[in-house]
Amino acid sequence: MSNEQQQGNNLDSWLDAYAARAETLSVSEVRALFSVVSRPEVVSLAGGMPYVSALPQELLAKAYHDMMAKKGNLAIQYGGGQGDLVLRDQIRELMSLEGIQSSVEDLVITTGSQHGLDLLSGLFLDKHDVVLAEGPSYVGALGIFRHYEADVEHVFTDHDGMSPEALEESIAKVKAEGRKIKFLYLVPNFANPSGVTLSAERRPRILEICKREHILIIEDNPYGLLYFNQPVPDALRAVEADGVVYLGSFSKILAPGFRVGYVLAPPAIRDKMVLAQESALLCPSSFTQMMISEYLANADWKGQIDTFRGVYHERKDAALAAMHEYLPDLHTTRPDGGFYLWITLPEGVDSKAMLPLAVKELVAYTPGTAFYGDGTGHNKLRLCYSYPTPENIKIGIKRLANVINLQTELLETFKGR
Amino acid sequence: MSNEQQQGNNLDSWLDAYAARAETLSVSEVRALFSVVSRPEVVSLAGGMPYVSALPQELLAKAYHDMMAKKGNLAIQYGGGQGDLVLRDQIRELMSLEGIQSSVEDLVITTGSQHGLDLLSGLFLDKHDVVLAEGPSYVGALGIFRHYEADVEHVFTDHDGMSPEALEESIAKVKAEGRKIKFLYLVPNFANPSGVTLSAERRPRILEICKREHILIIEDNPYGLLYFNQPVPDALRAVEADGVVYLGSFSKILAPGFRVGYVLAPPAIRDKMVLAQESALLCPSSFTQMMISEYLANADWKGQIDTFRGVYHERKDAALAAMHEYLPDLHTTRPDGGFYLWITLPEGVDSKAMLPLAVKELVAYTPGTAFYGDGTGHNKLRLCYSYPTPENIKIGIKRLANVINLQTELLETFKGR
Repeated sequence: MSNEQQQGNNLDSWLDAYAARAETLSVSEVRALFSVVSRPEVVSLAGGMPYVSALPQELLAKAYHDMMAKKGNLAIQYGGGQGDLVLRDQIRELMSLEGIQSSVEDLVITTGSQHGLDLLSGLFLDKHDVVLAEGPSYVGALGIFRHYEADVEHVFTDHDGMSPEALEESIAKVKAEGRKIKFLYLVPNFANPSGVTLSAERRPRILEICKREHILIIEDNPYGLLYFNQPVPDALRAVEADGVVYLGSFSKILAPGFRVGYVLAPPAIRDKMVLAQESALLCPSSFTQMMISEYLANADWKGQIDTFRGVYHERKDAALAAMHEYLPDLHTTRPDGGFYLWITLPEGVDSKAMLPLAVKELVAYTPGTAFYGDGTGHNKLRLCYSYPTPENIKIGIKRLANVINLQTELLETFKGR
Repeated sequence: MSNEQQQGNNLDSWLDAYAARAETLSVSEVRALFSVVSRPEVVSLAGGMPYVSALPQELLAKAYHDMMAKKGNLAIQYGGGQGDLVLRDQIRELMSLEGIQSSVEDLVITTGSQHGLDLLSGLFLDKHDVVLAEGPSYVGALGIFRHYEADVEHVFTDHDGMSPEALEESIAKVKAEGRKIKFLYLVPNFANPSGVTLSAERRPRILEICKREHILIIEDNPYGLLYFNQPVPDALRAVEADGVVYLGSFSKILAPGFRVGYVLAPPAIRDKMVLAQESALLCPSSFTQMMISEYLANADWKGQIDTFRGVYHERKDAALAAMHEYLPDLHTTRPDGGFYLWITLPEGVDSKAMLPLAVKELVAYTPGTAFYGDGTGHNKLRLCYSYPTPENIKIGIKRLANVINLQTELLETFKGR
């Protein structure tokens, strides 16, 4: 076959050459929505985009000028594989807001916390290893675990977060099957997609179980500072240092376009993280790290987080009010922070099958199956209220109600026959 | 053991939990030099840092302001997993300078070309697969291949680049051993570390052999535009589209602190690259991509590349003059572009063992063993002339001569007995 024939189509001359892990890649349900989101007439309650318009550009302009004036040639040069030392020191203060004591030595800056989780997963996961996770769990994490050919075991999770009793049962079940658990992955605050927070009462129990069973905890906390009324309980990492790897991010409290996150890990794991990072991309961007460092040094970043909290609180209220008005019979979680509502549809309504109908009605959401590694979640869906205005959230949920009500009526009709 | 005891030391509670690939990580010979490089009294001819001071900051300031004025909220938001469409279109023009015709659809922006190579390696390399590479080859690539548990087979390379005859012999040898070749990795222009360029005469022969043997070529080209006198021959990708994945980078023609590179791949491979990238880090940084896009749109970027070419040409001349003056008996490559000289030491002198003595004399280089996956290269070393001033290059090579001459004298003395 000539090159001309090959170009421009998807015939693949290299099918016989891929590694086994290449088989794990598939177009995600969330990704398929990206093209929908970009159409202005659609109210997208799908993607988890922060409302970056609430960040004044003057704050960034000042950070840029300060950075270039003070250390312009360092900002555009290669940096160290562990990340900028000044920024690491500033992150210590950020983490202390959730009770975490740490040292700059144990922090690694990453290209978003997603890449931190990718590097960690590469360090720990062999094929068929088991990861314990909330049910439902973050779609991006499930994708990583799948890519490393690991299996996810979802642990029952309710309005107080992961159930300690269910965790013990899951561990016993996996061990009885002779499978190896590598870590417990959880998002303890305003979880994606459920919006629930692990209660203060359950935290020490989860820690105690994992310590007893010698299971590492990966605590992923991008939303913890975006609470509406009460600060969240202290981080798991605040209580236990050796058993917890903590992931943080600037994507939601500042802006995701910088791709800067961080990992706080026990020393031996941190050493391996740095080496894995150097192998994968030499070093994270000096430019974006130093921008954030100058922003933290000179801007009122705590006040900016308060601004974001206010924006998301208002939008959460708008979303719950619209749910109450248009879909009063559906169960929804009622988050105390973060970006998401998790909705339970009437029995028999399939959120994935319904999505094209919703898009036709100019509203988008994320189907529940995206958040399970085991094919469940058909009658669930995630609504993200962080990006649209309160008015558009109301319009979107009204449109969604039309679609759901039509589905429910159809089901009733068929049931009646 | 208590948490307090664990913190601050390197005892590892999780030794039993790591994946097999975690064993592949070790502190590289180049990395160990980073602490040395930072001491101002040491002339470092070690790391491959571009001389970013030759880039006027006004050009970046204009790019920043244009970007934020035109699309500030997009620049700090999540972007697509394939990278910014405008930048991809601009990269097409950049690649056309080396004869490459391409479409925006087949380009993927990555977090430096290092991460492009990491993602590609993840798509293709299973344990014990074979990668063919120049001998010597880029240390960062060898680290990636090792991390994916692949084996590297070095192909004999001389002053005209990789030998086609040796390539055929290596392929025959590996096939006879029943091992599977996944791709040929090469840096055809001003290679790291050797400085040599694959001749125009050999390029079609390498392409023909790989096509006949159905071996994918990964063409890594960070230095091609940094020629001193004559432009390099057309890229392999300019001739063959389906059999070549092309890696490019802004690290050497603009600045590495942005961490922006790109991959041009056949459609099926490109699709998998995008999915792998989304899994690994969701998307590359919109902020750094759009900075570069504005720079390319409004600055005289070709003139800036000419400036860099002039800087490196002058430094190469200074390095070769100093070699001629202080180490006239040693063989060195004489590059026509790029950053590196590759030096052959007298038989019996070990560059790795000699490094601490060199550092004591306040000069640093990279030992030759770093650039081989098979433990060879003991009497080789790489000198990087891109970062120090011509005066410091001369001082550094003079110091190096003292160290080498002392080693040679010692060897002669022992040989005489």
